[in-house]
Amino acid sequence: MRTALLQSSGRPGSIVENLKVLDEAAGRAAAAGAGLIVTPEMFLTGYAIGDDIARLAEPADGDSADAVAEIATRHGLAVAYGYPEREAGHGEGSPADAGADVFNSAQLISADGTRLANYRKTHLFGCFEHDHFTPGDQPVVQAELNGLRVGLMICYDVEFPENVRAHALAGTDLLLVPTAQMHPFQFVAESVVPVRAFENQMYVAYVNRTGPEGEFEFVGLSTLASPDGIARARAGRGEELVLADADPVLLAASRETNPYLKDRRPGLYGSLV
Amino acid sequence: MRTALLQSSGRPGSIVENLKVLDEAAGRAAAAGAGLIVTPEMFLTGYAIGDDIARLAEPADGDSADAVAEIATRHGLAVAYGYPEREAGHGEGSPADAGADVFNSAQLISADGTRLANYRKTHLFGCFEHDHFTPGDQPVVQAELNGLRVGLMICYDVEFPENVRAHALAGTDLLLVPTAQMHPFQFVAESVVPVRAFENQMYVAYVNRTGPEGEFEFVGLSTLASPDGIARARAGRGEELVLADADPVLLAASRETNPYLKDRRPGLYGSLV
Repeated sequence: MRTALLQSSGRPGSIVENLKVLDEAAGRAAAAGAGLIVTPEMFLTGYAIGDDIARLAEPADGDSADAVAEIATRHGLAVAYGYPEREAGHGEGSPADAGADVFNSAQLISADGTRLANYRKTHLFGCFEHDHFTPGDQPVVQAELNGLRVGLMICYDVEFPENVRAHALAGTDLLLVPTAQMHPFQFVAESVVPVRAFENQMYVAYVNRTGPEGEFEFVGLSTLASPDGIARARAGRGEELVLADADPVLLAASRETNPYLKDRRPGLYGSLV
Repeated sequence: MRTALLQSSGRPGSIVENLKVLDEAAGRAAAAGAGLIVTPEMFLTGYAIGDDIARLAEPADGDSADAVAEIATRHGLAVAYGYPEREAGHGEGSPADAGADVFNSAQLISADGTRLANYRKTHLFGCFEHDHFTPGDQPVVQAELNGLRVGLMICYDVEFPENVRAHALAGTDLLLVPTAQMHPFQFVAESVVPVRAFENQMYVAYVNRTGPEGEFEFVGLSTLASPDGIARARAGRGEELVLADADPVLLAASRETNPYLKDRRPGLYGSLV
């Protein structure tokens, strides 16, 4: 399945403008044969927008999810996007709710507009995220898409080998990782992501923001890594749409060569839990 | 602590010759200020030596351990070396014992000749190792050395993130990994080892064999990786002695910047065990 990585910071603070950026990129991705486009973390609203996070948060089945579903349907490809999620049943923008029940989430919507999976970031990074988000409690969220088992994760989550291993044990073939990876942590894009793909024998699509935003400087370098540890697509530092294939044949052959999941000895790993 | 990585295949099949190679290298390492020298996997006897593995195997306190202790004492530095270990109490070279109780081990001996720690490889690789070795059952083996907590692991072990994480949780500062890493798996030396150092916030010394031996072609590329993911020392493909420092000050600063161990959520990792 050809997978498009939309490396862009969009227009922080404007859902309307970010939906336009997604729409335009989805058109280009579909024209290039992509079956899926993935955005960075918090693409819908922007990341470094302070209290606007709570103000702009929506439930997983909110108006913006409908708008993304319309984009997916019109271009005929699936969309995975990052956004601030307000728990269903709570009023939007109510000051009493601010910060208390907003999750840093990623949702996968199919080419026919179905909401396939919604993931809430489990490993929050630094003071900014702990101030604005509640951590999720479900480590593995998956859906079937075009013959691949697709998993969802967000940014800091992927730096913990335990998280990606849990996906591998649950059969994830292609792990989607919207991210907001900042200077000086480019080692994660350059090295950690390909190693995660290799040690777990899966594809990993790591899709980053770019440029300065608030107190942060995002480093781009979005990467689609294959299970042999090769970066099949890698963006530079600027706004960019890059594409590469997640190939089930290569995946199966690589798993034969690298039997990590068979050679594990779970009985020795008790100290990890 | 300055650490010397002895990248060499020695003389497969000859313990006497390999002790000479170790002796000479230990002299050079000590002259360069090293407090520790590390050999590749199975350095004492050679790796691809078939049934000679069982014939040459010795207990952890056998004659060769005494010879290594003498080298360590004479040059005034610790030695970590790989060797085939026969379980104590079994006769050496007895055909009835062949393969049944031989471990692929690494032992650490201090500069005063004390046997500090002995580790038996827990994750055996491929048919050759399963034919010749019994796997060990103790995942974390450590010792205190010159103010650092030093851990032992062997080759394929380090490719499992669970193993290195267990060391991190047990406080390992410097992980010694004698290895016999073969073509086409150089990705492990180049990328996996620095990522292990980074994600676990420790130093990792990965010390490889080199050149052709039996059916194998070893790739060299021995690496001392620091907790910021940088390869502080990296050998080429041939015989080589490389040195770099494991610096407790850098280690402490890096752990402040990268609080992976504090940010883990063990309650979410239950599927791993």
